[in-house]
Amino acid sequence: MKLDSAGLQILSRHECVALLGSVPIGRIVFTDRALPAVQPVNFVLDAERLVIRTAVGSKLAAAAQDAIVAFEADEFDPGTRTGWSVTVVGSARAVREPEEIEYLAGLPLHAWAPGSRDHYIVVGTEHVTGRRLSSVDVG
Amino acid sequence: MKLDSAGLQILSRHECVALLGSVPIGRIVFTDRALPAVQPVNFVLDAERLVIRTAVGSKLAAAAQDAIVAFEADEFDPGTRTGWSVTVVGSARAVREPEEIEYLAGLPLHAWAPGSRDHYIVVGTEHVTGRRLSSVDVG
Repeated sequence: MKLDSAGLQILSRHECVALLGSVPIGRIVFTDRALPAVQPVNFVLDAERLVIRTAVGSKLAAAAQDAIVAFEADEFDPGTRTGWSVTVVGSARAVREPEEIEYLAGLPLHAWAPGSRDHYIVVGTEHVTGRRLSSVDVG
Repeated sequence: MKLDSAGLQILSRHECVALLGSVPIGRIVFTDRALPAVQPVNFVLDAERLVIRTAVGSKLAAAAQDAIVAFEADEFDPGTRTGWSVTVVGSARAVREPEEIEYLAGLPLHAWAPGSRDHYIVVGTEHVTGRRLSSVDVG
């Protein structure tokens, strides 16, 4: 078990990808008018890419066009003070090809929010890091 | 009930601050070597400021010195596909005055992660926005 300088367990790429596939919601981090911005999104993992569905014309759609974004998913249990967090940093790409949109529309990715959300953003997971907090510290 | 362009309920400042006070963990968003970065943190709300405890010398401590950061907390229920998200954008300030550190050390803010975490960062909540997802859409 490898620990980082903060005493957290460093997760392998394999573990990170498996954890990303286990939750329906993450948070995408981007820049909005030169300020840091963060927004929860539904996502699905497809061939080790993150697939995010949003509305055409949304802030996220505008900001994530061929930009470097971060994406974070986590689960924490306040009872045991344990949990994990996985962060992806990668290029976001707006999907424009009709064939690719048709393919992505067939994925099990159902937006929780109301309204039409037919704009797809994909983010590569080349750079993925994760930590697990398994010890209890009442610091 | 005010809705945004995506059909989500817009929360008032009062609701946002109350929700922030109801959870122990949020995610701080900052810039690390010109790339977007995001890290879960324990926090506590004190006099409408976010108080975050981290390790001296951590990436977060270095990055959040007098920088504009974003902070997000949320809760979602996959069963009902409902939840809320609150985002703060504000100046982060590293606390250096011994009197203020002593005061902050008395707050009910207990780091979950192991190791010494005696560095405090405070973030003002002047700019807080929040959304609630209460409808169900199986789109």
